[in-house]
This record gives sequence, structure tokens and C-alpha cells, in this order.
Amino acid sequence: MKILVINSGSSSIKYQLFNMPQEEVIAKGLLERIGEEKSFFIQKSAKGKLELEGSIATHEQGINFIIDMLTDKEKGVISSIEEIQGVGHRVVHGEEEFTESVLINEKVIMRIEEYADLAPLHNPPNLMGIMASKKFLPNAIQVACFDTAFHHAIPPKAYIYGIPYELYEKYKIRRYGFHGTSHLYVKRRLVSILKMPKEELNLITCHLGNGCSVSAIAHGKSVDTSMGFTPLEGLVMGTRSGDIDPAIIFYLNGKGYTPEDLNKLLNKKSGLMGISGISNDMRNLFWAQEKGNERAKLAIEVFCYRLRKYIGAYLAVLGKTDAIIFTGGIGENNPQIRQDTLSGMESLGIEIEEEKNVSTVKGVEAQISKDSSRVKVYVIPTNEELCIAQDAYELTKVQPGVISLKID
Amino acid sequence: MKILVINSGSSSIKYQLFNMPQEEVIAKGLLERIGEEKSFFIQKSAKGKLELEGSIATHEQGINFIIDMLTDKEKGVISSIEEIQGVGHRVVHGEEEFTESVLINEKVIMRIEEYADLAPLHNPPNLMGIMASKKFLPNAIQVACFDTAFHHAIPPKAYIYGIPYELYEKYKIRRYGFHGTSHLYVKRRLVSILKMPKEELNLITCHLGNGCSVSAIAHGKSVDTSMGFTPLEGLVMGTRSGDIDPAIIFYLNGKGYTPEDLNKLLNKKSGLMGISGISNDMRNLFWAQEKGNERAKLAIEVFCYRLRKYIGAYLAVLGKTDAIIFTGGIGENNPQIRQDTLSGMESLGIEIEEEKNVSTVKGVEAQISKDSSRVKVYVIPTNEELCIAQDAYELTKVQPGVISLKID
Repeated sequence: MKILVINSGSSSIKYQLFNMPQEEVIAKGLLERIGEEKSFFIQKSAKGKLELEGSIATHEQGINFIIDMLTDKEKGVISSIEEIQGVGHRVVHGEEEFTESVLINEKVIMRIEEYADLAPLHNPPNLMGIMASKKFLPNAIQVACFDTAFHHAIPPKAYIYGIPYELYEKYKIRRYGFHGTSHLYVKRRLVSILKMPKEELNLITCHLGNGCSVSAIAHGKSVDTSMGFTPLEGLVMGTRSGDIDPAIIFYLNGKGYTPEDLNKLLNKKSGLMGISGISNDMRNLFWAQEKGNERAKLAIEVFCYRLRKYIGAYLAVLGKTDAIIFTGGIGENNPQIRQDTLSGMESLGIEIEEEKNVSTVKGVEAQISKDSSRVKVYVIPTNEELCIAQDAYELTKVQPGVISLKID
Repeated sequence: MKILVINSGSSSIKYQLFNMPQEEVIAKGLLERIGEEKSFFIQKSAKGKLELEGSIATHEQGINFIIDMLTDKEKGVISSIEEIQGVGHRVVHGEEEFTESVLINEKVIMRIEEYADLAPLHNPPNLMGIMASKKFLPNAIQVACFDTAFHHAIPPKAYIYGIPYELYEKYKIRRYGFHGTSHLYVKRRLVSILKMPKEELNLITCHLGNGCSVSAIAHGKSVDTSMGFTPLEGLVMGTRSGDIDPAIIFYLNGKGYTPEDLNKLLNKKSGLMGISGISNDMRNLFWAQEKGNERAKLAIEVFCYRLRKYIGAYLAVLGKTDAIIFTGGIGENNPQIRQDTLSGMESLGIEIEEEKNVSTVKGVEAQISKDSSRVKVYVIPTNEELCIAQDAYELTKVQPGVISLKID
């Protein structure tokens, strides 16, 4: 069965066409700079690479174009749109309502629109992808997979902020958490590696990419995560500050910064970029550090130190932890970050196998802890698209008659 | 030698007169509602309790009045002001400059005034106390003890926020930490209880009062603490939010709250008060919880959960931890909070002795962990005034010729 996965962002659409349940990628592609003068398109498949430039004005045009390319007589991979039986859409915010992936109906569409208040940069373009997909693939089953869904089991003691409770009641201000699909995917992988029942597994999953988050997973369910009401909270990220003293905002407001300035500053100019002053990319910081750049070194140190503190916090939350998982671009490819984060934690049961750690890069999935390590440490490359394809496949397969399905 | 300790706040002055080095309290008192129509004064000593009401318009008048009461023919405890050889002043903010208690000279006064930008509610009244004390006790040695000083050893990886580094250079925005005198005091006590060299001691100290903070102490020095640029960051407190997603501020600003509203909301209407909706006092929350109040229960749970996470984070920071210390009104008197915070952490080396925990209240100093517990847990009643008296005594004793002295 062919499942199309669509990640429709503010000015780009990423997609992958899977053959399920074999989990084969038939084609993958990216359409960038939608609405700009020159849009850019690339698609890779067994038929070769297809690169095009042109003008795509809207997300609707974009989805239409992508379908044309998938069914293109020469470079396409399917002969008719009818081959696509299911479409999985990444949706960032599902509020408290969506606790798992769901079939898209009118009510779901209404809710995604409503929850745009909580994710104004993400839910609207996610929805544009859904609407276009419904239009051009009218016979396919449409499924929404929410970044927030995997975190639905977080208990009130972890999701309620220390602010007036009325703000939770009125505006639903609480910890939601994001990157759920990635945390869920690496958990699923580990369950299949360890062949343990997921209900017995306590994990700490570290998704370290340009955005970064850590989750505490107890008995297979997310019980806490570092991102909160928005993806700004938690770890230091590429350009996001992560945790700060909230009073810094009031202090800087007193120095003439507007709330708008500060929102932009904390989301776009902070994090690794802000501390180092040179880059939001960890690879650049390592190069600069090697050349003696002190602030690049400091940015790396802060990054690891803050991650170490979250891991410690979640060790305390879980009581007994079976494994720590690193994933995401940095988590999968940077042995030094993993080493610096976890060094000196032997008394907490964590022992890294140095050689194994160093050799685990570029998509390799491996245990990097010593066999004697009470807490195992793994690197598991993430695959959010596959996770979405898995959910979309499960929901497409059982159609009709089921609205949602426990599949975590 | 008699040492007067003064804590001069925005509308109140607390004081204690010590006989040092015996650490005897000769008299202690409080002057409240300075500048209001009816000020209130109370002094306790071997001569009995002295309570007065009247109008004290300024801090200068207040200090003058306190000295009058200390030397009062009938209810006073000293015959002349000349008996007071040293005065120790609590000062909240010493920026990066003051890393220990110092003799007050013109430069120190200038700096306390300058650093009022970082602590606008505290440094100015602290300074008023100092100026009045210099005026009415001109022959006494004046010493400043900073809430921030004990945290001076926190390394850059722990004090630099993930925000543009220029904001640190320009405005000195960094983690400072507060409650330093309390964390220092309980550390000093534990050093003398364990009779271990302080350079070998790794501790986590939890000061839980109306304000709350945790510190990680490595080799006797504070290396991290939960309060940050201001005392708003960190744990959930009586009315302060502690850590939140900073984006909550921007979201609420978009809903019509001004930065001023939000500053007040997070400092005065949040924390235990905000979550429970009924009280900022932990005792009231326990009463309400017993009567079935769900939000009081939630506030208590959030409080313990957040503390547990900080303790876990600092276990990871320290690698090997010798002891956890509870202090402050809640830390000293609430066995349930200690129990709930540390339960289920046996795999991290923490085992509470239940009976010992329950019986350790009301100023009792005791170990509350099992003997088998790898990490010892202590309750040590704090005494910030005594800590200030100790520093002031040390500096008064060695006068003249020394400006400051390593005394942590």
C-alpha cells in the first residue's frame, strides 16, 4: 500500500512516498520558497533526481505540482493518483484533544484551525497541505499526526506551570511538548531492539537537531518533556534560548526592547547562535572551537551542560531508567556532545564505551554504553516521516469504521 | 564582641544583636511598615518582649529608633552604642564584583547603588540601612554580606544564558543566584557535623521558604543554583512562578497583558498561590488538601516534582553527591514535602528513614536518611543572621588593614 507523507511548512512542503508495510521509500522530495519569485523543487527516486525551478504561488499549487511529479510519465514513480491510498500529514499542535494520530474529518479540520492560536506559525500551513491533499487526492484516506500527541500522558504535576490556574483554564496554557513523532519513533525502535514489552521500558530520549528536546518516558509513555507551551522552552537550541529567567524579558523591556523584539530575539537570535555569535550549526562551532574560538567553546559547553541537567532531572523523575537515546542531527552525528554530556555520571549508572561512541555516526544505530552500564545508552537515527507513514498505514488499513486507534 | 546584624528591606528592618564568637543572640527585633501611618516594632531579649506602635517615616529614623531600644535604660541590652563593634548588613545584589563579605567603604557604597539596577527593590533599602548605621554607629566596623556572593564560583557554562552574549557584556545578564547566605550557612554546619574538609564535600542544598532555591555545591563551592538573574527563576515558590516557557509572556502580551501586568503576575500572583488559588503558605495548602481541595493538592505536587527535578539535575552536575540538605521554613518543618520529593530515588542512592524524617521538625537538626543511603539527607535549620554575624565578626576582628577575607 502506498502512503504519502506530507510536512507542509510556512514556505515549504516536504514529502515522502512509502510502500507500506515494507517501509520502503519510493520517492522523497522538497518544494521550497513557496510564494517567492523563484521556488525550488527537488525529488529523488529510483528514476533519478529531478530538480526544477519555477514559480509556485500557493500551498495548493504546491501539492498539485508534487502529485504531478509523482505521476510524471518520465520521472514519476506511480502511474495514477489512485495508487496513493493514504496520506499522513504532520500537524504541529493538537492541543489536549488529540492524543494520537487520527483520521481527518470536518471536526478535525476545525480543531486544527482553532489550535492555530497555540501554534500560529505552524498549524495554518499544516492545514493548507491537508486541504490541498483532500482536493487533489480525493479518494485517499487523510490522517493527521500531531507533534504534541505522544506527550498526552504527561501528568498535571509536570504540565501545570506555576502561574495562576485560571490561565490554564482560560487559555490552555500548559506544557504540551513537541517532537513527539521523533521521541515516539526512537522509542518504537528501542522496543523492537530490546524485545522488551513497551510497558516495562523507562527511557530518556534526546532529540538534538536544530530544535532540541528531551523526554522522560515511563512504561512506554511520555511523562515529561523539555519543550513546553511552545518549542522555545528547554534546551539551548540552534537559535532558541531554551530556559531563561523570565524576568530577563521584563528587564530588557525596561531597557527599550519591545515584546516583539524580545520574542524574535529569543526565538531567532539566541541559543548556540546567540552565545557563539557565529553560527547556529554545531558543526561550525566545533570547527571554530578547534581554531581557538572561546565563545564557540562556551556555546558547546552550555549546550552539553543544560542537556546533562535535563537528563539528571529525568533520571530523578523515572527512578529507574533503562536507557538513554540520542537522536536528531547532533544526537546521531556528534560523539563529542554525547561524551561531554554524560561523562562523570558513573555513580548514576551511566558508562560510555568510548570507541563505540566515536564510531557511531552517519545513520548508524548502536548501543554506545559499556555492557556494565546500568543505564544503556543508544544512538538511534530518527525517522519522523516513517513514523507518520506507520500511523497513516495503520489507520488506512483498518478503514472504514474506526476514527482513531491506539498505536503508540 | 557585640555584632549587630541588619536586614533592611523595602518597608521593614530586621535585626539581631550577637555576642561573638559565642554566637549568642542578645536581642532580636523587627520594625515593620516604615513610612506608613502606623509602624510596628517588636524586640525580644532576656529583658523581655518590647512591643510598640508609632510612626517611623524613614529607614534612617528606623535605625535610630532600633539603637535607642537596644540601649534603652529599662528594656535595652547594652549600655552604650560603643559596645557594638561591628555591623553586618544583608545586601541582596553584589553583581560579579563581590565574591565574599566585605568591609564597607565609599567604593562599596557606590557599587551597591550602581547594582540597584539589577535589584531595584532590594539594594536601595539595603543601602539606606547601611547609611543610617554609619551615621548612628560611626565607630563600628560596617560589613556588607551579599546574597549573591556565595554563588561567585558558578562557572560560565552554568551562568551564561542561551541569549546573545552581548546582553551579558552590556547588561551583565547572567545567573547570579540568591539565598547565598543560607546555602553557605547550612554548608558550614554540615562541614562541622561531618568533620570533613569542605574541599571534599559535594552537596545539594534546598532552601525552601516563601522564596525557594536549590544549590549544587562541589568541593565546598556553589557551582549552580536555581535562582538566576533574579529570584524569579527556578522552583515554584509562594507567589513566584519559577521556571516557565518564556513564550508564555509573549502569548499573554498578545492577549492584552502588559509587561508590567505580567511582571507582577509572575512575581506576586503565581507559584503556590497561583496554582492553588487559595494560599501561598504551604501549611494552608496541607490543611486544604486534607479537606479534599484538589488544587491545593496539585500545588503541593508541582512543588515537590519541580524540586525533585532540580535535585536530579544537580546529582548529574555533581557526579558524586555526599548529602542533600533541607532548610528554610518548609524544608525544616514539612516531612511530607521531603518524603514526596525524594521517594522512589533509591536507584540514585537516596533512602529516607521515615520515622526520623517525620520527627525532624521545629528547628531540629538531624540526618533523615538511612545509614545505608549512599547520599545522606539532612535537615539543618538555617540561620542567615548568624552567618552574617560570623562574617562581620571575622572582618571586625582582623581590622584594620584587610579589605576582604576568604571565609566561605
